[in-house]
Amino acid sequence: MTGVLDPAIAARLKRNADGLVCAVAQRRGTGEVLMVAWMNDEALHRTLTTRRATYYSRSRQQLWVKGETSGHAQRVHEVRLDCDGDTVLLVVDQEGAACHTGDATCFDADVLLS
Amino acid sequence: MTGVLDPAIAARLKRNADGLVCAVAQRRGTGEVLMVAWMNDEALHRTLTTRRATYYSRSRQQLWVKGETSGHAQRVHEVRLDCDGDTVLLVVDQEGAACHTGDATCFDADVLLS
Repeated sequence: MTGVLDPAIAARLKRNADGLVCAVAQRRGTGEVLMVAWMNDEALHRTLTTRRATYYSRSRQQLWVKGETSGHAQRVHEVRLDCDGDTVLLVVDQEGAACHTGDATCFDADVLLS
Repeated sequence: MTGVLDPAIAARLKRNADGLVCAVAQRRGTGEVLMVAWMNDEALHRTLTTRRATYYSRSRQQLWVKGETSGHAQRVHEVRLDCDGDTVLLVVDQEGAACHTGDATCFDADVLLS
């Protein structure tokens, strides 16, 4: 995978101090919010061009293709940038569980208010 | 509004360097992702106890009750914490437009991929 993020898109991003934008993955159809992660320009570029959700791991400081080891990949149908340019919304088809715990989403386990 | 965040919840939060967690607001029923903002402990405490979505403005460095000036408030039905404790998901009823631009959501205007 080579290439750089479309300059017209790159110019609209408002990255944080670490050069990242927030990424929310939502399941196509049901609208479930699956997970929230981070992207640098390269992760966004790869996501847009391969349609495989690719994030930037802050702990490991490297790109990760979602599902590359777990098999729980995300096929990306739509990507939208928010009004202030610091968050992208991905609409995806999720293979298997989205959460590394095995839960369907990262928000299944801990309900603070209902 | 007084009081502090439940210590059992506070202990599960993984705040960023600014003491904040990410907050995703999703419309009840349709599942639309409306906006992404930030919360400190006090914003989360107020959100949980008043059921009015309350965020922390990084630019103004103060709490803001969504809709306080615009009228576009969010009534909170559910709050969930994600698996690594750095993001909350709010399920809300949104009054009017969620976005300050007048759009229904903050993700309406800029489609990067479809």
